[in-house]
Amino acid sequence: MTRVGFVSIVGAGPGDPDLWTVRAARRIAEADIVYYDALIDGLALTQRTTARCFRVGKRAGEKGVCQDTVNQLLVRTARRGKQVVRLKGGDPFMFGRGAEEAISLVAAGVPFEVIPGVSSALAAPALAGIPVTHRGTASGVLIVSGHHPSVMESILDGVRPNRLTVIVLMGMHHRLEVVELLLARGWKATTLTAIIAAAGCEEQVVWTGPLEKLATIETSELPGVIVIGDVVGVRDMVTAVAVETEHMEIQHGR
Amino acid sequence: MTRVGFVSIVGAGPGDPDLWTVRAARRIAEADIVYYDALIDGLALTQRTTARCFRVGKRAGEKGVCQDTVNQLLVRTARRGKQVVRLKGGDPFMFGRGAEEAISLVAAGVPFEVIPGVSSALAAPALAGIPVTHRGTASGVLIVSGHHPSVMESILDGVRPNRLTVIVLMGMHHRLEVVELLLARGWKATTLTAIIAAAGCEEQVVWTGPLEKLATIETSELPGVIVIGDVVGVRDMVTAVAVETEHMEIQHGR
Repeated sequence: MTRVGFVSIVGAGPGDPDLWTVRAARRIAEADIVYYDALIDGLALTQRTTARCFRVGKRAGEKGVCQDTVNQLLVRTARRGKQVVRLKGGDPFMFGRGAEEAISLVAAGVPFEVIPGVSSALAAPALAGIPVTHRGTASGVLIVSGHHPSVMESILDGVRPNRLTVIVLMGMHHRLEVVELLLARGWKATTLTAIIAAAGCEEQVVWTGPLEKLATIETSELPGVIVIGDVVGVRDMVTAVAVETEHMEIQHGR
Repeated sequence: MTRVGFVSIVGAGPGDPDLWTVRAARRIAEADIVYYDALIDGLALTQRTTARCFRVGKRAGEKGVCQDTVNQLLVRTARRGKQVVRLKGGDPFMFGRGAEEAISLVAAGVPFEVIPGVSSALAAPALAGIPVTHRGTASGVLIVSGHHPSVMESILDGVRPNRLTVIVLMGMHHRLEVVELLLARGWKATTLTAIIAAAGCEEQVVWTGPLEKLATIETSELPGVIVIGDVVGVRDMVTAVAVETEHMEIQHGR
């Protein structure tokens, strides 16, 4: 009888391998094969494992390996008796399509586990000094994907103005729709907003400004997390000292 | 000149130290002093550090150390030149009051960092086999605190029925308000819901059922994460095989 392998569907967090979980780091180190998303740093990965590492995700606008093919790869590799890690940016069950892969593994009878990761939706603001909730400022967080503007709009549509923090993932190319929708629904034009790109990495860039200007700011092609809400204003209080420290995660204006 | 210490405000994730980040584990191991929240497992903590560990958080209904005292403790300990870890359940900037502590450290001129953690809001569902988003089922997630029902209600009030996943933290004692509000706003009585207690720990318990019954189920006094939305139904597809595996995070009905 052939040995059946095992698949770990793992969240890698916002980017820096230092923000992998302890369990994730162990599974990656011990894996035979790692299939990783486009947003994962392949070099940092290969320095931390002897596994063979294959990039299977695609960046925006790029042709990549489709989801069905990834599903099949996982099944086939596990059936060859391998310890497989499927490494995904952020958290695998938060816009990560991790459940689709899990369902496919179930259908094939392949044993697997899910290891949650630090979601970029929360970590990117945190690494920029922005708490997504703050007493007296915001007691709720709405996280939406900007990938399909019509879906995003149907979700944002009913949200009462300026009561909670809105976080838009994969929404950099649809900022105008976000701004127009929120302004039309009564959100203040001066509502504070932030864009955090490359959160937690050397290249981290943070831009902050009012909602009415969110769509006009020139940004790089890096994927960015958009934060909308008065919590962005807490950043100035949180980053005042932090920038002078050496091993500080919170960086001001970088 | 006296050496100034350093404070790391650290998210511990949902409970299991295996879900600490690599950086968090290192800071904890190297700390002089750790101040930890009530929901952190003190025994597991002391096994992983030579630091002196003090519990400063309080459980619901308990008298504990107030926030101002915690702020002062952090400042005073750092001023004695210590490497301090402030360890908080989940993510420190997600209902963790981490920003309040950061602001207090800024005011005192004490250098610090924030290390994001795996938020229980996302990890508890994941560890129960529930993706918070799923293609064709939910493209958005709303996370609210149930601690102050009136605030929670003002946030839930405008959310369109059955378009996104609602996650309620600290809401176990206010489930009735949640149910009544959502039903009154047009949410289907049959909307799937789940409660996950002690996520990722040996004692993990998952209960699932329709929205109309969410408030009537008898649960333990353990703090639970409430998930409301059709993504709960994905669990049956995801957990079918997972339960047969050995080092599986996803547990069926446990």
